[in-house]
Amino acid sequence: MPDTKDHIVSSFDKELRTIHEIIIRMGGMAENQLSDAVDALVQRDSAKAELVRKEDAKIDALEEELEAAVIQLIALRQPVANDLRAVIAAFKISSDLERIGDYAKNIAKRSIAINQMPPQKSVTSIMRMSRLVQEIVKDTLDAFSNSDKDRAIDVWHRDEEVDEMYTSLFRELLTYMMEDPRNIGACTHMLFIAKNIERMGDHATNIAETIYYLATGERLEGKRPKGDRTAFQILTPDDGEGEVEI
Amino acid sequence: MPDTKDHIVSSFDKELRTIHEIIIRMGGMAENQLSDAVDALVQRDSAKAELVRKEDAKIDALEEELEAAVIQLIALRQPVANDLRAVIAAFKISSDLERIGDYAKNIAKRSIAINQMPPQKSVTSIMRMSRLVQEIVKDTLDAFSNSDKDRAIDVWHRDEEVDEMYTSLFRELLTYMMEDPRNIGACTHMLFIAKNIERMGDHATNIAETIYYLATGERLEGKRPKGDRTAFQILTPDDGEGEVEI
Repeated sequence: MPDTKDHIVSSFDKELRTIHEIIIRMGGMAENQLSDAVDALVQRDSAKAELVRKEDAKIDALEEELEAAVIQLIALRQPVANDLRAVIAAFKISSDLERIGDYAKNIAKRSIAINQMPPQKSVTSIMRMSRLVQEIVKDTLDAFSNSDKDRAIDVWHRDEEVDEMYTSLFRELLTYMMEDPRNIGACTHMLFIAKNIERMGDHATNIAETIYYLATGERLEGKRPKGDRTAFQILTPDDGEGEVEI
Repeated sequence: MPDTKDHIVSSFDKELRTIHEIIIRMGGMAENQLSDAVDALVQRDSAKAELVRKEDAKIDALEEELEAAVIQLIALRQPVANDLRAVIAAFKISSDLERIGDYAKNIAKRSIAINQMPPQKSVTSIMRMSRLVQEIVKDTLDAFSNSDKDRAIDVWHRDEEVDEMYTSLFRELLTYMMEDPRNIGACTHMLFIAKNIERMGDHATNIAETIYYLATGERLEGKRPKGDRTAFQILTPDDGEGEVEI
């Protein structure tokens, strides 16, 4: 019965495409949320930050919609092998995108606090780091749309650049805190904002790994060059160059 | 053919039980990793911290094992309705546990850096917070083992206590930083450790939500009391009480 078989295959493909469209929408929203959250910080615009906080619920709702679609697709089409892997991959990717959205929301919250303190010098570095991560998220979504494993590898390597920016920003912020204790409150929020952006990069990298695994059946993990060494950093006012890497 | 039907049902149940056993193992390991990472900090034991860093790979490996088991179970048994939801729930829970493991690893890394600095006063507060989260993780796993929705609700509410401890620790650490800039390096690591533990609590809460949803078909989200207000905190040396909640 080739007709029935074709019919089943095309129904599956059509429903998987619907799931992929949800992912693309989630990804676009997550990208915008990051951009708007950092704009709210740079422009000291707390109203914009409030908007970002509220918008996050839409990404969460899309994740729930995707979960329901995944369960329905598996139950109705009973996919196996690569088809099933593609569905599970979509499920994993949506949870990474939802987390990226959460981090944007957290940045928005913190920018509301920072907007009530004196302007911060590190805002420019945050903006630069955020632009890089936005590009990476965008490229990850392109790699996903085109099942492009080479682009996935490219994205995966660029996370190192994010980690390096984060490490440098971490040192910059600690230096400001040491220079003047009045900076400590705002710089602490900036540290967490930087960490949030760095974590967004990690989630984009997770997505790249999922795309690569789906395309090749092999795992990229374990080969990633790690640029973020701040967990090992020792920096004191007496010892400004005292970075110890273990 | 009632026999065949029974046979299929019991195969599914057996395989789902195998997946649940992986989750219980992952959960036990994540709990130990948190406990050992904080011990490494409290006892200033960098060798123990190194061990925690290495052990994390075992949790990651279990997550991959679980993913493979989930894909195989869906492909072979083609579960629908609640059975399918139970499999997807297991998949989600494993990813929360893997993240809890990652946070423990990050605490271990940071404790290696902190062990090279003077002893920190806030270690006791970190230990208290970590014990609470260990209990919560343990109770979450119990709720999971027994599909106990009431226990899941209980765990879910206790996350508020974690958030409150975190908020208080956040203020404590900022105060130490302001008192003496030489504390800034170590206190920054302590801030991130506290945040990691707070995030572990959030993942336990996610697991509780998944258990509740599976048991009742309803979502707990949106009803959670949020105790962590630090993203809104404004604290300066001039204005020690200047916490603004927006």
